[in-house]
Amino acid sequence: MASASSLQLPIIKVKSALSVATHDVLAIEEPLEIRLEHGPVDERKVQNISVTMRTPGNDAELALGFLFTEGIITNVKAIANIDHCFIACAENKENVIQVSLHPDSVPCLKNTERNFYTTSSCGVCGKGSINAIRTVGQFNDNQLDDSFIYSDILYSLPDILRKHQDVFTDTGGLHASALFSNTGEMLLVREDVGRHNALDKLIGAAINKGMVPLSNSVLMLSGRASFELVQKAAMAGINIIAAVGAPSTLAVQLAQEFNITLVGFLRDERFNIYTAPHRILFTQ
Amino acid sequence: MASASSLQLPIIKVKSALSVATHDVLAIEEPLEIRLEHGPVDERKVQNISVTMRTPGNDAELALGFLFTEGIITNVKAIANIDHCFIACAENKENVIQVSLHPDSVPCLKNTERNFYTTSSCGVCGKGSINAIRTVGQFNDNQLDDSFIYSDILYSLPDILRKHQDVFTDTGGLHASALFSNTGEMLLVREDVGRHNALDKLIGAAINKGMVPLSNSVLMLSGRASFELVQKAAMAGINIIAAVGAPSTLAVQLAQEFNITLVGFLRDERFNIYTAPHRILFTQ
Repeated sequence: MASASSLQLPIIKVKSALSVATHDVLAIEEPLEIRLEHGPVDERKVQNISVTMRTPGNDAELALGFLFTEGIITNVKAIANIDHCFIACAENKENVIQVSLHPDSVPCLKNTERNFYTTSSCGVCGKGSINAIRTVGQFNDNQLDDSFIYSDILYSLPDILRKHQDVFTDTGGLHASALFSNTGEMLLVREDVGRHNALDKLIGAAINKGMVPLSNSVLMLSGRASFELVQKAAMAGINIIAAVGAPSTLAVQLAQEFNITLVGFLRDERFNIYTAPHRILFTQ
Repeated sequence: MASASSLQLPIIKVKSALSVATHDVLAIEEPLEIRLEHGPVDERKVQNISVTMRTPGNDAELALGFLFTEGIITNVKAIANIDHCFIACAENKENVIQVSLHPDSVPCLKNTERNFYTTSSCGVCGKGSINAIRTVGQFNDNQLDDSFIYSDILYSLPDILRKHQDVFTDTGGLHASALFSNTGEMLLVREDVGRHNALDKLIGAAINKGMVPLSNSVLMLSGRASFELVQKAAMAGINIIAAVGAPSTLAVQLAQEFNITLVGFLRDERFNIYTAPHRILFTQ
């Protein structure tokens, strides 16, 4: 069934030597420009912060999550308003969203000029990228947390996630990010053609619900765990990340530095623990 | 086996209620800064064009492919030199690459300030994104080409690709892009943690070999077909794209506008044709 996140298009379906004209449901991909309005009352300005290719829906959460995980805003109270702008355009799509800060709120925009990966004085390297996050992040001190999850609960998460991936089921074309309690209850899920967007939407939604820092939630990723995804999780104070796919070296190094438990290849009653294994408990 | 694109790290492998300490091979992810040196002899300047998280290896191809598919350079003859810069850094990684243009070569940098998705006067929408590529692309007139591929050959491509994905086999963590002849011969393959990087490396390698425009090659993608990947293929003059995964709506719209044949879900003797089906022939 087509939803606002998907669209039905005519295709030719081929199997062995047979071909039939039919329809397929595809994940919608459209650009979203995130604008930030800020400054004192007599000196307001609007800046283009980012353009991302995303699946429409939950755009305000995406903008909020992006600004937060990039360290541009650190407190949701800085925000006066988030809304779409309607730009003169033949298609008139809702593809521009503006985040307006209160006049006395100052965004941290130094990261946007280059970005996280090169803000460190160390230059361009993995270590520098990790140090940059250490500087900007608010929830880096999780050495004393007591969060944990049982292996049996972990095994159950991919199935629960898949059952909630409405648009993926239709299209096969969306990534998902979800938050679970450590008893296996799904708290929030978001989907997008871009895996970073799915996570930004999720974290934006969690901020709106007052759930951040997410130190007691388990983040489940439908695909691989890249540096960028672990970075966003670290910015939101997440302690446990479980991915269906493989992590990269830099994702593991970042998780190690931030004492985040990183699990990969979680499927078919198996998984690998890459970092901080003390939070994974085994049922007797 | 660990190569320069992968690294072995200690992990805990869990299956049912059993856990063992072992090692896993992970795909390496590190930042790469692409710099462009250009201008007349007495007025040279160096600009930071992009930072991408990539798997080290084939960095010069990645930089070349990126500059070309973003429309920043249109002719490889503009380039005098491509080489790593060694920046003072504790880790001393090869994470900065500089492309130097000849003094009389002028790059087209207007796209880098915002980017493809917002260069159109139409504003921010899918149609605008597509029109922007039409303006910049050199190989958009493929209405009269006679490229084609037989369905039997298409069926064979995923297996051939998988056999050449050395680092994926080790790590499960890399995307691949490959060029095939229409007789099913693999011409080139590149892997990366980022699917856009894998394609940039591939197109950069093809430029170096004098193969662009790639109007007689079939592009095979190991994952999904997003707008960005079809954009890069269009910039390189590719007429046939086959993806193992799903395409997005905007990928299909772009392929339609550029008369590119787009095949998705190519696996297990099946595929879907989304656009320009006339290039797919069926064996009697």
